[in-house]
Amino acid sequence: MTIEQSTIEARVEAGFSRANFIADLGIRPTACGAGWVEAELSILPRHFQQGGFVHAGVQTTLADHCAGAAAATTLAEGFSVLSVEFKLNLLRPALCETLLCRAEVLKSGKQICVAESEVFALKNGEKRLFSKATVTLAVLPVAATLPR
Amino acid sequence: MTIEQSTIEARVEAGFSRANFIADLGIRPTACGAGWVEAELSILPRHFQQGGFVHAGVQTTLADHCAGAAAATTLAEGFSVLSVEFKLNLLRPALCETLLCRAEVLKSGKQICVAESEVFALKNGEKRLFSKATVTLAVLPVAATLPR
Amino acid sequence: MTIEQSTIEARVEAGFSRANFIADLGIRPTACGAGWVEAELSILPRHFQQGGFVHAGVQTTLADHCAGAAAATTLAEGFSVLSVEFKLNLLRPALCETLLCRAEVLKSGKQICVAESEVFALKNGEKRLFSKATVTLAVLPVAATLPR
Amino acid sequence: MTIEQSTIEARVEAGFSRANFIADLGIRPTACGAGWVEAELSILPRHFQQGGFVHAGVQTTLADHCAGAAAATTLAEGFSVLSVEFKLNLLRPALCETLLCRAEVLKSGKQICVAESEVFALKNGEKRLFSKATVTLAVLPVAATLPR
Repeated sequence: MTIEQSTIEARVEAGFSRANFIADLGIRPTACGAGWVEAELSILPRHFQQGGFVHAGVQTTLADHCAGAAAATTLAEGFSVLSVEFKLNLLRPALCETLLCRAEVLKSGKQICVAESEVFALKNGEKRLFSKATVTLAVLPVAATLPR
Repeated sequence: MTIEQSTIEARVEAGFSRANFIADLGIRPTACGAGWVEAELSILPRHFQQGGFVHAGVQTTLADHCAGAAAATTLAEGFSVLSVEFKLNLLRPALCETLLCRAEVLKSGKQICVAESEVFALKNGEKRLFSKATVTLAVLPVAATLPR
Repeated sequence: MTIEQSTIEARVEAGFSRANFIADLGIRPTACGAGWVEAELSILPRHFQQGGFVHAGVQTTLADHCAGAAAATTLAEGFSVLSVEFKLNLLRPALCETLLCRAEVLKSGKQICVAESEVFALKNGEKRLFSKATVTLAVLPVAATLPR
Repeated sequence: MTIEQSTIEARVEAGFSRANFIADLGIRPTACGAGWVEAELSILPRHFQQGGFVHAGVQTTLADHCAGAAAATTLAEGFSVLSVEFKLNLLRPALCETLLCRAEVLKSGKQICVAESEVFALKNGEKRLFSKATVTLAVLPVAATLPR
């Protein structure tokens, strides 16, 4: 199944713009393709935990949302995904001005998708990896992913 | 090692009030003891994902932060914790007015603490479990948990 | 849906006896009910890692298999489960003569089941918890869980 | 810190040959370097689960052990690792004659190492990925990783 780039972009755009919590945090998609999505977030003091680092919850929100959007780029028309579970490893405390994320689909199945997300900042042109997540998503008809 | 309840409460209070992202979301601690913490969050539309459910990132922030606070209630003076990793299972889509969380320490070690968090709502007096997390935390001298 | 205890026992018995790796390790079911399974393993030197503790792989095999069996006790006729993913925390190095495991279903859904497994030994009548796992399983028609 | 290749090989060799459960399953290291280890396992009927696929416990044992060995190649003299936790996603049912694994260190810290392991088979010269794990390990003085 090949999905056109314009369809992919429309899905990713909708998946971010309709999610209140994503808009509230300031997360915006920056690029996407078949099976991958990139997004970024300008870090503000409101995103900090008690020590002044970016809160793990901010990183997870970014990682999970990009993973879901990446999975959505691989689905047949009429289907959507809901996160089933994820695991995120925090590799070092996160301090940066802009948090970046790239999510890639590892396996796109009929019932289950698995994606990985890397959360990082660029420093002197190099990736400084703060956290990495593996996200398992259920593939469902769109109606089954909405409140009844 | 026995830690006085007043010390436990002071640690939990500080761990929540100093964390900008926790205040920003509206999360507040409600009860605590040796090895456990409870907190709640009044759900607003800004906490939603694209379908109108509470975003997984909101649930994770609550689960992770309570786990860290629960771990902190078990530490010797001068030590603190940083999350190393967590895994959260979303058992059903979350729709509610108030999200509750209870975190309990499973193992408190010298280098590593492990805690579990349940995220739920009360409905007709019964727990409706939305998600459950396992959180691994590193135990560190306080100075090592702050930006240099 | 109520499933008779004799059906539950037959499913658990089959799930263990037909799995070569489970028989090879020496794992045997000891009790079961709707949504839960218990099993045990007599520890031999062949189960050790390099330091002389029970290998994490042995604990995981026990935890995963019991979780699958517990999930199977909740399914409609004609369905089975395959593990999608699991996470296991090793709380302390495992040294014992008999390793015990109890798995309980946290959520039994149409597409996904989630179960938890505790791996422990009894010492002076008390549970010594070595590891705890959360297991996500896909619910599938039996034919879809077999090689084609 | 640079560690000589001969030291790396000696550590990996010892980490596999001294682990009874690894020898019992038939797992053997095939290559290693600074921060990575590869191993393989000839699949026999004894490694199967009830449906005839390679048991998740076999895949996890391979993934966890390689991750630990990969972490060990990065440590200062006198230190060793113990697995703290891992998460493994099963991407498709595993059927093959030889199971391969490559583990790579994602972050090597003073207290914590994180490694990833891919479990796969080669088919027509291409990697067929069966499972992927993320493993968190505690770095400890060697004496603290042995039974007292």
